[in-house]
Amino acid sequence: MEHVPEQTSTDEDPSLDPVLLEDLADAIDEHDRPWLSRTLLRLHPADAADALEQLSIDTFLEGVTLLGGALPSEILIELRDEYRERAVEILPDEVVTEALDLLDSDDATTILEDLDEERRDKILSEIAPQDRAALEHGLTYEEETAGRLMQREVFAAPEFWTVGEAIDHARAEADRLPEQFYEVCIVDPGMKVRGIVPLAMLMRTDRTVPLADIMLPLQSDIRGDMDQEEVAYQFQKYHLAQAPVKDADGRLIGIITVDDMVEVIQDENTEDFLALSNVSSADGSHTVMESVRARAPWLAVNLVTAFVVSGVIALFEGTLQQIVALAILMPVVAALGGNAGSQGLAVAVRAIAERELEGSAARRAILRECLTGLVNGILFAIGVGVIAYVWFRDPGLSGVIAVAMLATFVWAGLSGVAVPLGLKRMGADPAVASSVFVLTMTDIVAFFSFLGLASLVLL
Amino acid sequence: MEHVPEQTSTDEDPSLDPVLLEDLADAIDEHDRPWLSRTLLRLHPADAADALEQLSIDTFLEGVTLLGGALPSEILIELRDEYRERAVEILPDEVVTEALDLLDSDDATTILEDLDEERRDKILSEIAPQDRAALEHGLTYEEETAGRLMQREVFAAPEFWTVGEAIDHARAEADRLPEQFYEVCIVDPGMKVRGIVPLAMLMRTDRTVPLADIMLPLQSDIRGDMDQEEVAYQFQKYHLAQAPVKDADGRLIGIITVDDMVEVIQDENTEDFLALSNVSSADGSHTVMESVRARAPWLAVNLVTAFVVSGVIALFEGTLQQIVALAILMPVVAALGGNAGSQGLAVAVRAIAERELEGSAARRAILRECLTGLVNGILFAIGVGVIAYVWFRDPGLSGVIAVAMLATFVWAGLSGVAVPLGLKRMGADPAVASSVFVLTMTDIVAFFSFLGLASLVLL
Repeated sequence: MEHVPEQTSTDEDPSLDPVLLEDLADAIDEHDRPWLSRTLLRLHPADAADALEQLSIDTFLEGVTLLGGALPSEILIELRDEYRERAVEILPDEVVTEALDLLDSDDATTILEDLDEERRDKILSEIAPQDRAALEHGLTYEEETAGRLMQREVFAAPEFWTVGEAIDHARAEADRLPEQFYEVCIVDPGMKVRGIVPLAMLMRTDRTVPLADIMLPLQSDIRGDMDQEEVAYQFQKYHLAQAPVKDADGRLIGIITVDDMVEVIQDENTEDFLALSNVSSADGSHTVMESVRARAPWLAVNLVTAFVVSGVIALFEGTLQQIVALAILMPVVAALGGNAGSQGLAVAVRAIAERELEGSAARRAILRECLTGLVNGILFAIGVGVIAYVWFRDPGLSGVIAVAMLATFVWAGLSGVAVPLGLKRMGADPAVASSVFVLTMTDIVAFFSFLGLASLVLL
Repeated sequence: MEHVPEQTSTDEDPSLDPVLLEDLADAIDEHDRPWLSRTLLRLHPADAADALEQLSIDTFLEGVTLLGGALPSEILIELRDEYRERAVEILPDEVVTEALDLLDSDDATTILEDLDEERRDKILSEIAPQDRAALEHGLTYEEETAGRLMQREVFAAPEFWTVGEAIDHARAEADRLPEQFYEVCIVDPGMKVRGIVPLAMLMRTDRTVPLADIMLPLQSDIRGDMDQEEVAYQFQKYHLAQAPVKDADGRLIGIITVDDMVEVIQDENTEDFLALSNVSSADGSHTVMESVRARAPWLAVNLVTAFVVSGVIALFEGTLQQIVALAILMPVVAALGGNAGSQGLAVAVRAIAERELEGSAARRAILRECLTGLVNGILFAIGVGVIAYVWFRDPGLSGVIAVAMLATFVWAGLSGVAVPLGLKRMGADPAVASSVFVLTMTDIVAFFSFLGLASLVLL
């Protein structure tokens, strides 16, 4: 049976059309390779990849097997990590080799990273020596560095060229230039970067003007071994669309374009976001076991800290036996204190990620968080005290819970900003582990102050 | 006294040089306007803005007053919202008018947004009628839409032009073209967008080739009233550096460039990040009172929910009176359950933001989270049960806490993904309010199952 591609309206995201998805699954089921291939080619690679990711991983892999070399490399590179890795795993060597050949060097490096060492060496040996050397050089940089993300294809020109010469060169060398670029890198004879000329500037300048006259100084300063987070920061700060990457001696070795940085920014945000909630990784295609593995370690840490907190409560066993209202109200102090701590923590982790807490700004932030804790503490001490009084009609109990609340809020404010700043100073990631520390310590302060004060005042 | 600008090494972020900061503060203190002006001009506007933001807001405003019109508009626009708004507030009308004149229309709109209505009208009346109409049109779009973010200066060309004609036009009209752009918009006589030609493509094509031959179809589909989050999604998905913005009839009205989208992506990430921790806004320059206002409302909600949870505990007052170990162990069930709920919630909120939970993927995610809750629940039910047994040597108590733990984990898994998905379906922001709901419900399940089972089994 021949499937007829559905006409999708341009107003909607075509990849999410449920009819299309069903047809894709049917075509794979019926081994209708021509229809599948044609339909995927009709879509933008990003839309095609989105559609394929909607399939279960098993159906997707069946589709990859069915397509083989007919799975375009532009779609392959658009797939989410999990799907791409699994696809590369089952694609024949010659298909992977061909994809490496067609892709820009930064994308080719991504595919190479997916391969185990043995297969990587085998496939590299089948690539033309010149391209192979370039790809192998890219792999010498660590993951998540500029060297891994850059593409080696660069439009560079000496500063004594005129605008006309630069344009003529681009026309003559059209095939060897990168698919997409936004600037000309101006280099000296030793390939040191002297500056850049945005294409918009090149376009509007007369042919006779030397590049030296319209060259802008280089704002970015990106080395091959620089961490991608730092690179993304420079792109953001200087509003860059492209930046040259230099080796240790300042020589041009490639360029990074902004689309790769947008991805890095999203990835780093996701990492922080999940780390703050004690998840080590997440992906829509994770299996249950992968999800368990990503979460159980921090739950195990929390298991230990939770029993430490119980130990603090156990110190006041006698008090609890005599005043059961304490057991009823305990979670109020802990819940509100924990919420205040999470708030301060989120603000601090975010501010650190956006580099707003450097130098004296850090001291100001600690002071502000303590004062915020104090003000909110006073407000909610009164609130909790009043509600507790209405409930239990015991002014002593109300006073105790109010004071405990205030102490917990101030502590939550202080630790919420001090813990991530401390972790950062120690060279650790401020988002990871922060919340377990802050919440455990806040619980301890909450229970200790509430039950301790109750033991002193109410017994 | 004349200040000598410090020589800053290019290896470091110049804005963070403490000596420079001190000199800036001194210069403001000593009203040394020439030095201040010269030093700021010597820096990249982004670096100058960063340096100024390191000053306390009062010192900064003194500096702005001192500089007046000598504060370059490129630095003004680079300042963080808080600092920029306060600066615009105290700058004289004629300085603001001049800045509006110098800036691209998207940046000018940002400044106009900072002004109160009366002052905005007054300043607009001093701008040339043509520019004024353009700026006023931008303000007709709602905040956080494409219409507000776009710049009106566009390089557009008809498809019958050749590459040579397009370049000649750019040279002739150099002054009226936007400062930075990456594509030529190809339009028909009615200004409908037919496609785009990346500058890199224009550069490498011979002068005689018609634009129609090298034009690429438009992937993006951005209307003036489209929400910025949707615009950012399209930039990310299709790896765009620039995209045309169309009015309701599909006519070209402006362009958006990727640097603005990088900012939007960061802002939306920050919003989600803070919302999940119940903070409505955050800024390094917030005062204590602003921080209190950004956090107290959710704490107030939490105050109510915490007492609801207490009410659940109060149902078991008699049981707690007889078995004080329950009060000691209660927080363990709540803490671990809460942690499991936060984990699932973070994964779900993130996946929703990245549009990974559409259609059947949502159903799969709910199933996965329940199963993950079940598996982790079994693991930690055993862990908690064993530790409780070692501590209290009461097999009944161990059994009760283990079963309560399991129930809480499954519930936390389910609600962690179902609550944000439900909020999204109702058209609400899945990040806001999710954590209060999930954590409160998880607490209730934890205490109800633990104390309820204990009442049934142990009494």
